Amino acid sequence: MDLYSKQISKLIEELSGLPGIGSKSAQRLAFHILNMPLERVEGLSTAIIEAKKNVRYCAQCYTLTDSELCPICSNPKRDSKTIMVLENTRDLVAYEKTGKFEGVYHVLHGAISPMLGIGPNDIKLKELMQRLQGEIDEVIIATNSSLEGETTAMYISKLVKPTGIKVSRIASGVPVGGDLEYIDEVTLLRALEGRIEI
Amino acid sequence: MDLYSKQISKLIEELSGLPGIGSKSAQRLAFHILNMPLERVEGLSTAIIEAKKNVRYCAQCYTLTDSELCPICSNPKRDSKTIMVLENTRDLVAYEKTGKFEGVYHVLHGAISPMLGIGPNDIKLKELMQRLQGEIDEVIIATNSSLEGETTAMYISKLVKPTGIKVSRIASGVPVGGDLEYIDEVTLLRALEGRIEI
Repeated sequence: MDLYSKQISKLIEELSGLPGIGSKSAQRLAFHILNMPLERVEGLSTAIIEAKKNVRYCAQCYTLTDSELCPICSNPKRDSKTIMVLENTRDLVAYEKTGKFEGVYHVLHGAISPMLGIGPNDIKLKELMQRLQGEIDEVIIATNSSLEGETTAMYISKLVKPTGIKVSRIASGVPVGGDLEYIDEVTLLRALEGRIEI
Repeated sequence: MDLYSKQISKLIEELSGLPGIGSKSAQRLAFHILNMPLERVEGLSTAIIEAKKNVRYCAQCYTLTDSELCPICSNPKRDSKTIMVLENTRDLVAYEKTGKFEGVYHVLHGAISPMLGIGPNDIKLKELMQRLQGEIDEVIIATNSSLEGETTAMYISKLVKPTGIKVSRIASGVPVGGDLEYIDEVTLLRALEGRIEI
């Protein structure tokens, strides 16, 4: 005999397929959902399916959006000649929250990883090179500072350099407010190499 | 300007309303959902709304189920004269997983808590007393061993005793495999009081 009735089991099963949600959390979430008012449950269910059905890639920068062009690419005040290249939409949001970057973005949706079998053709690199045929001043590579992110940064810089467009990489170093004692050696060395005169 | 397009914001907002899911986790979940195949997203969305629409209380024991009577109450092999009283359906599942209890259950959907303004009429107590008018041998109180759970257990035992039906309370003590060093004093005292001869 099943411990739960069919509909509850199905709900728990679907929820436990989400990242970071184990079987205990899925049970807790399921019972919470069953106790929510019907209209809130409808809101949740609808938001999930509507987001999936309507969200697509921006035709220019490939971030996730629900219109042809994302709000950033369609904003005439943004400097469309400066492109920041990122691994995913969450990284874009992190930079956008700083409120200081006035250029536009390009989302790769991944990073090159020979280990995972992800090559240059599996991310939005061709699309980036196509954009560079327009009038572009600078490409700022802001992939993660992981092995994959660094590999991707190197690869992109080699592709872009021959075009004569300026290529830069965001700085690695000690995070602001970080306590040196707790920071790994590689980061400490990067911070030293990247020191600037004050 | 919003950081996310409307549909994504809506999805993040709905997800972050769930227990244990903060705004960062909600973002991560949202992007995971957007990357899932459409059919899996439909499965999730449908499971949520269908469970909510079809799941109700068992007419006898008040556990959450999707039929008139839950599988336990409608199983003729269960001993319907022994009723275990629990705070919620998750606790029922925990006991049911042991596979050793052959009686039936009664789910209160809460515990008496003067602090939170939850009185005897706010939980399924009247319904329990009604069941006791049938032929019942024993009521086993398995509410949590918290202040609310203990209060509820005391209250129920006082209500049931005059009927002549046997009332028992599950034992408090050191959890199996628990290291005494890390167990709170109240539990240690309970374990001492409840010691049995060997």
